[in-house]
Amino acid sequence: MKQIAILGSTGSIGQSALAVVDAHPDRLRVVGLAAGENADLLAAQIARYRPQVVAMGSGGALDRLKPIAATIQVVGAGREGLVAVASHPDVEIVLCASSGTDGLEAVLAAIEHRKTVALANKEVLVMAGGIVTDAARRHGVDILPVDSEHNAIHQCLHGRQSSEIRRLILTASGGPFRGRAPSDLLTVTADDALKHPTWRMGRKITIDSATLMNKGLEVIEAHWLFGVRSDQIEVLVHPQSVVHSLVELTDGSMIAQLGVTDMRLPIQYAFSYPERWDGPLPSLDLARAGRLDFAAPDTVAFPCLRLAYRALDAERSLPVVLNAANEVAVARFLEGRIGFGSIPHVIERTMDAHVPVEVATLAAVRAVDRWAHEYALEIAQGVELKV
Amino acid sequence: MKQIAILGSTGSIGQSALAVVDAHPDRLRVVGLAAGENADLLAAQIARYRPQVVAMGSGGALDRLKPIAATIQVVGAGREGLVAVASHPDVEIVLCASSGTDGLEAVLAAIEHRKTVALANKEVLVMAGGIVTDAARRHGVDILPVDSEHNAIHQCLHGRQSSEIRRLILTASGGPFRGRAPSDLLTVTADDALKHPTWRMGRKITIDSATLMNKGLEVIEAHWLFGVRSDQIEVLVHPQSVVHSLVELTDGSMIAQLGVTDMRLPIQYAFSYPERWDGPLPSLDLARAGRLDFAAPDTVAFPCLRLAYRALDAERSLPVVLNAANEVAVARFLEGRIGFGSIPHVIERTMDAHVPVEVATLAAVRAVDRWAHEYALEIAQGVELKV
Repeated sequence: MKQIAILGSTGSIGQSALAVVDAHPDRLRVVGLAAGENADLLAAQIARYRPQVVAMGSGGALDRLKPIAATIQVVGAGREGLVAVASHPDVEIVLCASSGTDGLEAVLAAIEHRKTVALANKEVLVMAGGIVTDAARRHGVDILPVDSEHNAIHQCLHGRQSSEIRRLILTASGGPFRGRAPSDLLTVTADDALKHPTWRMGRKITIDSATLMNKGLEVIEAHWLFGVRSDQIEVLVHPQSVVHSLVELTDGSMIAQLGVTDMRLPIQYAFSYPERWDGPLPSLDLARAGRLDFAAPDTVAFPCLRLAYRALDAERSLPVVLNAANEVAVARFLEGRIGFGSIPHVIERTMDAHVPVEVATLAAVRAVDRWAHEYALEIAQGVELKV
Repeated sequence: MKQIAILGSTGSIGQSALAVVDAHPDRLRVVGLAAGENADLLAAQIARYRPQVVAMGSGGALDRLKPIAATIQVVGAGREGLVAVASHPDVEIVLCASSGTDGLEAVLAAIEHRKTVALANKEVLVMAGGIVTDAARRHGVDILPVDSEHNAIHQCLHGRQSSEIRRLILTASGGPFRGRAPSDLLTVTADDALKHPTWRMGRKITIDSATLMNKGLEVIEAHWLFGVRSDQIEVLVHPQSVVHSLVELTDGSMIAQLGVTDMRLPIQYAFSYPERWDGPLPSLDLARAGRLDFAAPDTVAFPCLRLAYRALDAERSLPVVLNAANEVAVARFLEGRIGFGSIPHVIERTMDAHVPVEVATLAAVRAVDRWAHEYALEIAQGVELKV
């Protein structure tokens, strides 16, 4: 029986994780749950899974939760709440699927308490990849990626050394605007961008998929997870999202992982690792799929991917700036305040204004993050759409 | 420095293996070479690689070799010659790429002398899979498949247990007649069948690709190599031959191996295993490939695949009969004596006439093989084309 905590249990990944628990009641027990603001759904999850420890994103959310939830032994709010859930002594595996950068301290706490970390939140490694992977190495803790691409690479490597890797190839659906000319993208709306062709996900990550920034963040994540240089990481557009990613080994042979587009697959892999469990997950029928397409990404129409490589090559604090400026730009785009083409503009202007510094502590990361949020907001305000 | 022997050095696989040696002169040394009848080419190989031991398919061939070859320490002819090369004390790895069933005794001799076996000859396992894999287990010897499909599966498994396997999926180019209606296949000639779309191979195996018998033999080979049941082995038509095969694991996840269609890749893998070497082999460019197609095989137009499953399910001696009758039928087709559609007819009639027996020794295998050759020849003579 593996004892798990789920940070972000009311989100898309969190709900898929609980579906995996439902499929394996004899193998998985929910010890901790944490959610942001959705008290109603968390109350229902508490009633069903009876966790020992629960947290929410704010004191206000906790106040809404308390009258409707069954008895709970411990509660907390905000980042402290996430840390309390992640470091609970009974927890063995922490699934970090909380949004944005909230999970950073909780992931470090989990590592320091020698929990296995199942990481669904790419911002954690983009912001603090060096700090987190150093800590994991020091404490001998596995970080198991839940993102379908990195999970695929973990499955492809299956214990192979990073010295055997020639290239990692991250596949990208290409998003809803694949094949469009740059001029065509000026007038797209948030509603257009939220129609992702193959994966059902949250709003922020769906916009990141439309700009290819999601793939850019994954390039940075792959660098930290698998210890490879940026010039060893390539992006390949693959609209059907059937091949989840590939590894090219030193002799030119390629290993790929394929499967249905269902997040229960990588989540179950992370929970079961190093075992592999049967499950209710559907098989992939390649004969029925019939055809798979591949193409190089268009970094002219989608400059965010190029910006992510630039941030990774500079290392130090530039990935933090990239991520923060992207958060601001995407939020403003979702509010209808800036155009789709302004997203990379806001990010690039913020990166240009930043002088990279070392970020060896979370406090340093947070300071850069705050500066970049403020600066990006100013830039975004300068390019607001006239209504 | 790994010391290798190559059985079938003048054939297509043998020549690719020597190209691998050329690329790794500091890692591979040729200790033994064996060829069938091509004395001129073997003489050139002897001059270049200076092996310690050499054999040819017949005394006549040896007589042609002796005056033109440099000094050779030991020579032999026929199956005894192959055994002598395979069991030479300095040899560590035996690549068995000799044609047909000639290599059977040599593979067993290699196993008994604890050599690693790189197996390019599928007839060995089709005829004597139980005998060979039992011997390998007893002597603790690795059998490394060189056939691109089984090599792909070996790479995908990478030490995973057979209990983790849900299905093995062998890809098939579909051969030159993919998509043709059965009635369309009545008039095809050997020349038509020898035009293989993706792989350059010998004549027998190219015809086997056109009938899909090659894939059928590979299904039987996969059963023995990976310890899975016939209902766990599927065939998937994939015209581009880029995905060399796939494994579906118990959770529904699939692992695939991809690469250029160049036999040096699996041969080098077998020679380097468990290491993996850099090399001059080209990378696969999926963006340039652009598109991969997949379809279920047509067992109405290509009944040989169905016959192979029938032989595997019956086990015992029926795979020997399948293989022998196919050898006869393909030889007669290559001579222009029988039609393409008569190949499965000859095989099925021979299988129908056979009462399966246990084949626990090579002598028993050879006896069934002889009977099936004779019986199949009679059937083939009955369906000869009138000129």
